[in-house]
Amino acid sequence: MDQTLPTRDHGGGVDAAVARWGGAREDWLDLSTGINPVPYPLGHLPGRAWTALPDRAAMDRLIGAARSFWSVPPEADIVAAPGASALIARMPGQVAGRRAAIPGPTYNEHAAAFRAAGWEVVEEGEEGEEGEVEVRVGVHPNNPDGRLMAAGDIGGRALTVIDESFCDVCPEVSHVARTTEPGVVVLKSFGKFWGLAGLRLGFLIGSPAKCARMREALGPWAVAGPALEIGARALEDRSWAETTRKRLARDAARLDAMMAARGAGLAGGTTLFRTYTVPDAAAWQARLAEARILARVFPYSATWLRLGLPGGEDDWRRLWDALA
Amino acid sequence: MDQTLPTRDHGGGVDAAVARWGGAREDWLDLSTGINPVPYPLGHLPGRAWTALPDRAAMDRLIGAARSFWSVPPEADIVAAPGASALIARMPGQVAGRRAAIPGPTYNEHAAAFRAAGWEVVEEGEEGEEGEVEVRVGVHPNNPDGRLMAAGDIGGRALTVIDESFCDVCPEVSHVARTTEPGVVVLKSFGKFWGLAGLRLGFLIGSPAKCARMREALGPWAVAGPALEIGARALEDRSWAETTRKRLARDAARLDAMMAARGAGLAGGTTLFRTYTVPDAAAWQARLAEARILARVFPYSATWLRLGLPGGEDDWRRLWDALA
Repeated sequence: MDQTLPTRDHGGGVDAAVARWGGAREDWLDLSTGINPVPYPLGHLPGRAWTALPDRAAMDRLIGAARSFWSVPPEADIVAAPGASALIARMPGQVAGRRAAIPGPTYNEHAAAFRAAGWEVVEEGEEGEEGEVEVRVGVHPNNPDGRLMAAGDIGGRALTVIDESFCDVCPEVSHVARTTEPGVVVLKSFGKFWGLAGLRLGFLIGSPAKCARMREALGPWAVAGPALEIGARALEDRSWAETTRKRLARDAARLDAMMAARGAGLAGGTTLFRTYTVPDAAAWQARLAEARILARVFPYSATWLRLGLPGGEDDWRRLWDALA
Repeated sequence: MDQTLPTRDHGGGVDAAVARWGGAREDWLDLSTGINPVPYPLGHLPGRAWTALPDRAAMDRLIGAARSFWSVPPEADIVAAPGASALIARMPGQVAGRRAAIPGPTYNEHAAAFRAAGWEVVEEGEEGEEGEVEVRVGVHPNNPDGRLMAAGDIGGRALTVIDESFCDVCPEVSHVARTTEPGVVVLKSFGKFWGLAGLRLGFLIGSPAKCARMREALGPWAVAGPALEIGARALEDRSWAETTRKRLARDAARLDAMMAARGAGLAGGTTLFRTYTVPDAAAWQARLAEARILARVFPYSATWLRLGLPGGEDDWRRLWDALA
């Protein structure tokens, strides 16, 4: 009766896995997402983060930390939102037009948002074949294959959306500096790299006009008090970010080696998720599900299997055994 | 540089009070909002409320609890959002039209949202004088005067928005049963009655079609994991709600008596906030500010002073002394 969560294909659906394969929710190891399994420590939260309406000082601190962490150009502005998803859903309201190029395969909420707003979405097409479009969206690095958005694909349209939800593992390739160009915006996700997806925090970086428009669309007090506090602390903590990048790189290499030993080839990914080529992705997913490990497959590919990183040693061992 | 919080007139601006009257943030007693000062207890939060993408089971539990708590008709649906503000900002996208009647004075975000979407807003006008409008918005009970939306003002338009953000202190007057009528929706706020405004949680109750449209506009995983968990617990806890209603009624009467003794008359309100008539509201606000107590005044009235309820005995004593 209540379709309160998306019916579109997504990772993170442990409850759906329970319904399909059985077991209790707690039995499952969810490797179907690209969320860092070692989250930023929550620490102590002041009571007023929960009880008071989020005040300007808390938001200013978060925005200042974000500006510094992502080296946002002084000419660009930043908006914080309750998750990158909240920004993606409102992106069609940013600009007038009717056709958006969203080369696939990629994260499917971008196309869904534009279609829901009545746009035609061009998902396929080689360079130059997409025809007249007002908008281009690229996920950078892309989910699930990790490909990067070419510098030449940015700008020259009313709106270019660069979704850097997975880019904090490779900040050296970020296109944030391009947000000084007309119509270029970058999205950032807090939940994935910092491992706190339940917190709901994301950012839009772009021109002051685009940011003002998004702020109006989100309404006041868009971000919860705990997210303001934890987000600011985490973005100020560069040491945690550097250590985490190294750990994720090591763990991604470890997962690649493990999967190679079991006969899977690497198709792409980031150090937050790895996409492998296997002979029969659905069969591999089903085999892992017997061990209550949730892997991701894609409706458009029979051979791609995506895995997030295990956290503790028990989880690594469990995955290894399940792949035997 | 970053206008990350609303520039429109609102309560809850302790940082603005610090800038205007001095003191440290911690020095201030904020009585400028209508937030219950005795919040629902947070309790223990499971780690996955923070780390995992909010899953369907958590949302289903929250929605079930909301449906039961507010006696939502079976024909109506419910959407949870990160705060009633998030719903208010998206309300103009619910319907086609150009003129909205929003009788004032009332909470100013409704008119702001429709104006931002290009609508003409009719704020004044007696019954029948508003002309042709597609939308009517009423806050029920109204902020700041507590007046109720008449049953006859509901329905008969493309969209009737009944904002029941302050109605949980008087559930017997709720118009939720009217959401079975075409175009009638009710908004609910979690932060005020349960005293957890930083959590960001609100609800839209209306037809399945209206709710589906709103869900699409909000995007997936709109509500944070901690809000799903705490919101469900609180809405299942009828005993806390009943005790709280009685306490708020006692405390509102106590505040009225205190203010009457100091020469203020009651203009209206709910048991979450009281609006008083005083000879010079700005002067009263300034006098309270000397004691670092933040009261609310309104740009459209020289004589209305709004106060939320003090929490502990120290706060009551402090207010009494400041009014001397």
